[in-house]
Amino acid sequence: MPRRHPQPLPPAVAVRLELVDEPRAIAVIASCVADVGGRVRTLSTVRRAGRAGAEPGESGTVEVELEVEDADEHALVGALEPLREVIALAVTRPLGKVFGKRVIVVGGGAQVAQVALGAVTEADRHNLRGERISVDTIPLVGEEHIASAVRAVADLPRARMLVLAGSIMGGEISRAADELRALGIPIIALNMVGSITEHVDLVVSDPVQAGTMAVMAVADTATFDLARQRGRRY
Amino acid sequence: MPRRHPQPLPPAVAVRLELVDEPRAIAVIASCVADVGGRVRTLSTVRRAGRAGAEPGESGTVEVELEVEDADEHALVGALEPLREVIALAVTRPLGKVFGKRVIVVGGGAQVAQVALGAVTEADRHNLRGERISVDTIPLVGEEHIASAVRAVADLPRARMLVLAGSIMGGEISRAADELRALGIPIIALNMVGSITEHVDLVVSDPVQAGTMAVMAVADTATFDLARQRGRRY
Repeated sequence: MPRRHPQPLPPAVAVRLELVDEPRAIAVIASCVADVGGRVRTLSTVRRAGRAGAEPGESGTVEVELEVEDADEHALVGALEPLREVIALAVTRPLGKVFGKRVIVVGGGAQVAQVALGAVTEADRHNLRGERISVDTIPLVGEEHIASAVRAVADLPRARMLVLAGSIMGGEISRAADELRALGIPIIALNMVGSITEHVDLVVSDPVQAGTMAVMAVADTATFDLARQRGRRY
Repeated sequence: MPRRHPQPLPPAVAVRLELVDEPRAIAVIASCVADVGGRVRTLSTVRRAGRAGAEPGESGTVEVELEVEDADEHALVGALEPLREVIALAVTRPLGKVFGKRVIVVGGGAQVAQVALGAVTEADRHNLRGERISVDTIPLVGEEHIASAVRAVADLPRARMLVLAGSIMGGEISRAADELRALGIPIIALNMVGSITEHVDLVVSDPVQAGTMAVMAVADTATFDLARQRGRRY
């Protein structure tokens, strides 16, 4: 069966920009990127200098991390640097090269911590061999909050797998799980009370094992194929 | 002493867009956002439909998560929806409301897992009271890789604290730590061999304690002030 790994992405160029914080600034940057043939893939506002002490109407500044595909680094920097909106520019590294694929763990604190133990330990073994796998977690309580987090995994860059770590989940969380899987992000759940275990790819009773399998499933350095395990329980 | 917590941010509107993947598409979107008075704060390409089977020169599609400040949701959706580049649009939730502040843990697998145990358990207690704190980790080996990760924390949206979890760190990692702290992101390190302990805000011997303190330092629901502990060792 085909694995879910997408094709390798084209190389990206990353720059951190300090910009004048005007409404049109990002439109000017994006247009400049297109002028050199690039495609804006990621843009994150990572810091902002307050407008405290500024004259009314005066703009503050923001620091923005920008990742662009299909552009030559030299051409991109040369085009961005002279813009009036750009105060400072530094070439950085695309986040995918540093933090890589992300396994997301959501649920109750005790179980999230145990899944993280398994996932981090397994990611260590793969990252030693050239992989880049991060394990990102949030402990949450309540059907509504967990369902929101499950849906929001679809909006996280580089998220490749979700582990649901809890003792009871169902209802709106199960509906959110169906939506996320329809977008191509697989889910492993602990064996627990509630309908969620009918709405995931794999059910694993031991949280350390669940974290380990989640990392194996996204690692190119492993031979674990989640598609061949779909619907099973361990 | 003043705490490092920045001012609350203005409310953001978030939408997920399916776009024609042309170089000018993002410039068109950003210009449209500015037309309704908004400022693009975050834009992430979260999925892409391959161009397999497409005619030469034909564009694929991409799914992009967009967060905008200073715009009315109704006006923004009304302006984006008719654009030729927009195939589909859905209103989502800003990631800051779902995953909140991020504590980043970098280092050796065994220690990263223990720091995560402390941090996740402590974040659970604060998230129960309305906070939103995530604990994001990556196990890495090697001075160069760890230094790159420390520098890249500056480019992660919503990163508020770094914990360095290892047994020996110094050299380029210490230089990267100085750079990150200069940008306003504090660092807690485990008590370890190497110069790193001279280049961080706080040194903590027990990894579970280090994770707990890292979360307390960023939680508005805690009374722990890292500025008053700066330079100490526990």
